[in-house]
Amino acid sequence: MKKLNVGMVGYGFMGRTHSNAFRQVNHFFDLPYEPVLKTLCARNEARARSFAAQWGYDSVVTDWRALVDSPEIDLIDIASPNDTHAEIAIAAARAGKMVMCEKPLGRNAAEAEAMVAAVESAGVANSVWYNYRRVPAVTLAKKLIDEGRLGKIFHYRAKFLQDWTISADLPQGGTALWRLDINVAGSGVTGDLLAHCIDTALWLNGGIDQVTAMTETFIKERKHNLTGHVEKVGIDDASAFLARFRNGSLATFEATRYARGHKALYTLEINGEHASIFWDLHDLHRLQYFDHRDEGRLRGWRSIHITDGDHPYMKNWWVPGLQIGYEHTFIHQVADFLSGLAEGKTPGPTFRDALATDYVTDAVLRSAHSQQWEKVTSGTGAAA
Amino acid sequence: MKKLNVGMVGYGFMGRTHSNAFRQVNHFFDLPYEPVLKTLCARNEARARSFAAQWGYDSVVTDWRALVDSPEIDLIDIASPNDTHAEIAIAAARAGKMVMCEKPLGRNAAEAEAMVAAVESAGVANSVWYNYRRVPAVTLAKKLIDEGRLGKIFHYRAKFLQDWTISADLPQGGTALWRLDINVAGSGVTGDLLAHCIDTALWLNGGIDQVTAMTETFIKERKHNLTGHVEKVGIDDASAFLARFRNGSLATFEATRYARGHKALYTLEINGEHASIFWDLHDLHRLQYFDHRDEGRLRGWRSIHITDGDHPYMKNWWVPGLQIGYEHTFIHQVADFLSGLAEGKTPGPTFRDALATDYVTDAVLRSAHSQQWEKVTSGTGAAA
Amino acid sequence: MKKLNVGMVGYGFMGRTHSNAFRQVNHFFDLPYEPVLKTLCARNEARARSFAAQWGYDSVVTDWRALVDSPEIDLIDIASPNDTHAEIAIAAARAGKMVMCEKPLGRNAAEAEAMVAAVESAGVANSVWYNYRRVPAVTLAKKLIDEGRLGKIFHYRAKFLQDWTISADLPQGGTALWRLDINVAGSGVTGDLLAHCIDTALWLNGGIDQVTAMTETFIKERKHNLTGHVEKVGIDDASAFLARFRNGSLATFEATRYARGHKALYTLEINGEHASIFWDLHDLHRLQYFDHRDEGRLRGWRSIHITDGDHPYMKNWWVPGLQIGYEHTFIHQVADFLSGLAEGKTPGPTFRDALATDYVTDAVLRSAHSQQWEKVTSGTGAAA
Amino acid sequence: MKKLNVGMVGYGFMGRTHSNAFRQVNHFFDLPYEPVLKTLCARNEARARSFAAQWGYDSVVTDWRALVDSPEIDLIDIASPNDTHAEIAIAAARAGKMVMCEKPLGRNAAEAEAMVAAVESAGVANSVWYNYRRVPAVTLAKKLIDEGRLGKIFHYRAKFLQDWTISADLPQGGTALWRLDINVAGSGVTGDLLAHCIDTALWLNGGIDQVTAMTETFIKERKHNLTGHVEKVGIDDASAFLARFRNGSLATFEATRYARGHKALYTLEINGEHASIFWDLHDLHRLQYFDHRDEGRLRGWRSIHITDGDHPYMKNWWVPGLQIGYEHTFIHQVADFLSGLAEGKTPGPTFRDALATDYVTDAVLRSAHSQQWEKVTSGTGAAA
Repeated sequence: MKKLNVGMVGYGFMGRTHSNAFRQVNHFFDLPYEPVLKTLCARNEARARSFAAQWGYDSVVTDWRALVDSPEIDLIDIASPNDTHAEIAIAAARAGKMVMCEKPLGRNAAEAEAMVAAVESAGVANSVWYNYRRVPAVTLAKKLIDEGRLGKIFHYRAKFLQDWTISADLPQGGTALWRLDINVAGSGVTGDLLAHCIDTALWLNGGIDQVTAMTETFIKERKHNLTGHVEKVGIDDASAFLARFRNGSLATFEATRYARGHKALYTLEINGEHASIFWDLHDLHRLQYFDHRDEGRLRGWRSIHITDGDHPYMKNWWVPGLQIGYEHTFIHQVADFLSGLAEGKTPGPTFRDALATDYVTDAVLRSAHSQQWEKVTSGTGAAA
Repeated sequence: MKKLNVGMVGYGFMGRTHSNAFRQVNHFFDLPYEPVLKTLCARNEARARSFAAQWGYDSVVTDWRALVDSPEIDLIDIASPNDTHAEIAIAAARAGKMVMCEKPLGRNAAEAEAMVAAVESAGVANSVWYNYRRVPAVTLAKKLIDEGRLGKIFHYRAKFLQDWTISADLPQGGTALWRLDINVAGSGVTGDLLAHCIDTALWLNGGIDQVTAMTETFIKERKHNLTGHVEKVGIDDASAFLARFRNGSLATFEATRYARGHKALYTLEINGEHASIFWDLHDLHRLQYFDHRDEGRLRGWRSIHITDGDHPYMKNWWVPGLQIGYEHTFIHQVADFLSGLAEGKTPGPTFRDALATDYVTDAVLRSAHSQQWEKVTSGTGAAA
Repeated sequence: MKKLNVGMVGYGFMGRTHSNAFRQVNHFFDLPYEPVLKTLCARNEARARSFAAQWGYDSVVTDWRALVDSPEIDLIDIASPNDTHAEIAIAAARAGKMVMCEKPLGRNAAEAEAMVAAVESAGVANSVWYNYRRVPAVTLAKKLIDEGRLGKIFHYRAKFLQDWTISADLPQGGTALWRLDINVAGSGVTGDLLAHCIDTALWLNGGIDQVTAMTETFIKERKHNLTGHVEKVGIDDASAFLARFRNGSLATFEATRYARGHKALYTLEINGEHASIFWDLHDLHRLQYFDHRDEGRLRGWRSIHITDGDHPYMKNWWVPGLQIGYEHTFIHQVADFLSGLAEGKTPGPTFRDALATDYVTDAVLRSAHSQQWEKVTSGTGAAA
Repeated sequence: MKKLNVGMVGYGFMGRTHSNAFRQVNHFFDLPYEPVLKTLCARNEARARSFAAQWGYDSVVTDWRALVDSPEIDLIDIASPNDTHAEIAIAAARAGKMVMCEKPLGRNAAEAEAMVAAVESAGVANSVWYNYRRVPAVTLAKKLIDEGRLGKIFHYRAKFLQDWTISADLPQGGTALWRLDINVAGSGVTGDLLAHCIDTALWLNGGIDQVTAMTETFIKERKHNLTGHVEKVGIDDASAFLARFRNGSLATFEATRYARGHKALYTLEINGEHASIFWDLHDLHRLQYFDHRDEGRLRGWRSIHITDGDHPYMKNWWVPGLQIGYEHTFIHQVADFLSGLAEGKTPGPTFRDALATDYVTDAVLRSAHSQQWEKVTSGTGAAA
């Protein structure tokens, strides 16, 4: 088993999920590579040391360039806020490192195009952590669609609902709340939550042709944690759009942080000629499946408990009936990435795959501004 | 269409459900008979007149013997408290009337045996209102079992949970609360709720061989509405038993009025070698069905919305997706009873079918007292 | 109790639900009026006679003008296809009859405006059968909103999904399939299904300011039952729109007849600052309610089984735990209409209320055509 | 942080869950101890080496006595089949090692009593892996009960349903199927599945006074993997009992491996005077809670998504809405065990707690044999 030295940037929520994935993957999957938590990079050295100790990193640095420059590091994983993605990823690629990057790839498609260009011209393995593709129920959905089970697709429906920013007293910005800071995040729920919905949708249902969108910022001003002043809120609190896919299906997408009662309710539904699928992150271990080919009087939505050995990834875990959770999706992504390495292929979502999502989110934000239907363009061509 | 003159005894909850069934049945089912609400009988004349006016009865009497004696009456329907069933039914049968009777048939098997003897020797059509057999989802379950879909049966599981008698301030007895009066009701939840579970079970899964039971009266004394005094509570508040069916399957049964949060939660589940079925009165328009013969990775409990034209009784109602409710089960029972009349057969549950339930409830109460397993006997042989 | 002679136009699906409502209402509600099924009007006399016999109509006519001209008729109920609504309603109003009309009021707002003008200038009681307002769970939702329980509203979400027209072999037009004939229906799912969603939304959440919409006709040609030829399909098979309400909330609406697995899945959700509500026609007897003011660790969506005496309309039915179904919503509407008559007020939805829905559906269809956001206008002013 | 050297016996399903718990606990919990996977013991050396490599054990032995004798080992964890528990645990305790043991503690109470005597006389920390106490939803249930939220308890209801042994072709015995071998397992579902239900019940609801039980072996003979011959099946395939708790509540318990459609459906429900609780292992991250003190018309079962920071253990994991799974319960048990060590107390379930479960399972098996109600005795007094 070959060691793969990981340099991690960031120790926040995503720093934890990624570190856990690297630590756990070899306990459950037989792989040709063993990731080693080599070096953690973060600006706050004290907190970085504490995190590194907890997860077993060998060393700590406070400037990500040290990772790029280190001959020991094989793979740089970017788990820091959105405004850091492009610069680090491009430098890492140029230094010949494999690069894994949190989503969204860039704050906009222009940033993402530059990142794609960098990894592709460097020829380095790359991946973006759109982890929901690797929920076993979602992976099974993909298989069913690819097998043609659903037939012609008529409808796609996705939403991602949260409720954690309803209070007007919540400030914006800083380490904990950078997702509310337009400069750091690039956008609000569009890049944060809708991007997940879009990535899965493009994977399951193909390309989106055009969109009409609306966004809203319910709380217009919030105290900024960095300046201490009340400042205009630049992000979108809610974002919804109608879309037409290239395969002729119609779609509705919605994301918000103002849906009281929902903490991370990412749901998706696909209606095909023969069968339909529904999935819900709040019960991520289940897939709802309806098949019109079942005997008439016995047709019904099947609640499939995705814990059997013949369900994707599940033979590597426990026994039927025993569910896994959120963090496992990251472990699956590492497992697939490492298997792919050995086979000389990079399983998606690659940087290029993630760029496609940025093209859609850009079109959504453009439409919300123009109040027109907008084509999903492939941008400047820089990454073509 | 032949008219069938109905004499109804009682205007309580069941008087309403039965009256509604007779009034509605010809609007939805094509039948050779038309029931006519001829005469209502109840002791309180003023309330009887009011009820009769509301439902369109032609006349009112205060003594049920007037119904028995009336040449105009074709069918006597007994919707009065349990302690009146035997006397009225026997007299009605002897007078050659068809008899429909609320459940439980008798307060015990001895009463029920006499009733069976009466209707059978008189040769009159008879039926007992175990209405849940005619919930479309339950009727479908019966069909699936009869078709052998489930294979060998291993387990039967039923419960009927309510929570309306938890308050110690609730009195017992009188018109509204005769179900808490041992003399009127004969027993508590055993005859009231478990009897429903048992009737369905015998219908779906065949005979019960033996039982071991426990009962409890949580509130030992309550004010009696008739005497005004605090008196010992004679009924069972809760009743549970284990059973072995003749087909080798094992069962658990439970009923209570002390299950906070449940208003009328009658659930049943059957586990067979190939398939399982679950049904729940709180969502009576759904049947849960699991079929092991489905493709492995797509196996799941199907939630079947029982509103299609190929579901039992449903082509007579609305369109797919639109649910019916509780009262419809009574309408279905009348429809089947009237169809049966024309064909010269009496669809169950007949008095004899209902007697079988009384044999089980008697065994349950006997076991709760003896603390032994008790055989379900066929009693004194009076009805053999 | 005053008799109210009803003249009914139509004996289809809606003719049945309305007839049932008139027949049942006095059995369950104490009211100052008793509707009498006086005369049924339909073009096919044989079928009309059969229907009249089944429901107890006194007489049959084949020209609706006979109802308008008859001094015996107090109320004309229009349950015939959409293209007949305006002419009959206007004539009925001019003749001084009360008018009840199936939804949508007109095939478009222009027709509806003329109808509103007619009933208002005649001063006759009027009502439109947007029956879902009177699902007890929906009525309770209205009360909770009016009490301010939800606080400021952020989001409204509604959809109505069916799957009965997916087969390309299904013809269009004629008695059974007039909903697929653009000339008769006026539109497809927009006027049929979305109209229901919009009526409830306007009632619960106030006026809609503007919309952006898309529609689709998946099957472009179908055999026409009247001509026998394959003809272009003029209706919309699917329709979705984004909306901004006047209260600042954002909304998504969608209806389709191509959502495999859903028979009549009308769902609505409202997210407020303090609480959220969800309802689903497939389980119409439940209301899902989330209240953020509940103790933190015990917050959860409550599945409220709307069968208690303190739930709207339910004290008139059975006992807690026993559910009612679809047809009851029509009974409730008649009960409220008759109560209103006695009190000299007409409870909604009136013709004017229903016109507001037509303004929205017109804007939706306009937007789908223009590919622009469209303001919901109050039309020509004819009904202002 | 003090190192704690673990010697693990067994590498099966439970060897994996325990190893994972020891490896993960310090990544998520701040603890005074760090468990070190020191030595793995298993009879098959090749497989032991492979397992040790995957999980990072320092060394491998094939005789558990080597662990007992090793001065390096602080804690012996017994994850081997039931027939090995007593001998190893007693020797480990006598050698002064801390002992953790898979459930059930002994194959019967007599074995378990000797084990309790050993750890208590040696004064070593001890724990039994009844892991379901540490599902966050179940832990929250315990808190709510201890706070008196439910009031007087009327009913307890638990079942554990599986379907994996329905095929008559499944053999018994050997490494993979020792759970079907009476000599190794001690009993069938009674000690395997019911024991889990009983442990949780004793914890949540106090002691059980008496039981009446039935068991069944549906497939009477199976090929034995060790002898190669068809042999009588000694275990119980299904086991159910009624119970009376010391607090006056009534209970039903059931376990089976013949419930088609259920893979590991452990459910429990408690009905109290004021509130009720329901939990289900197939959706382990949810707690259903009904509180009668809620406003009447808004009462409903709350589906609480147990993923918030104020839910037990959850602040150590991810963010609200993101669920954890099965394996986390073992991590929680280690976390509590290590915290307890530092504070000089041993959190349950201790060996003595687990003995109480063996007393109940013994009474269940005794009752199934005697066909009588049986008192739950505290046995021979050896452990008194």
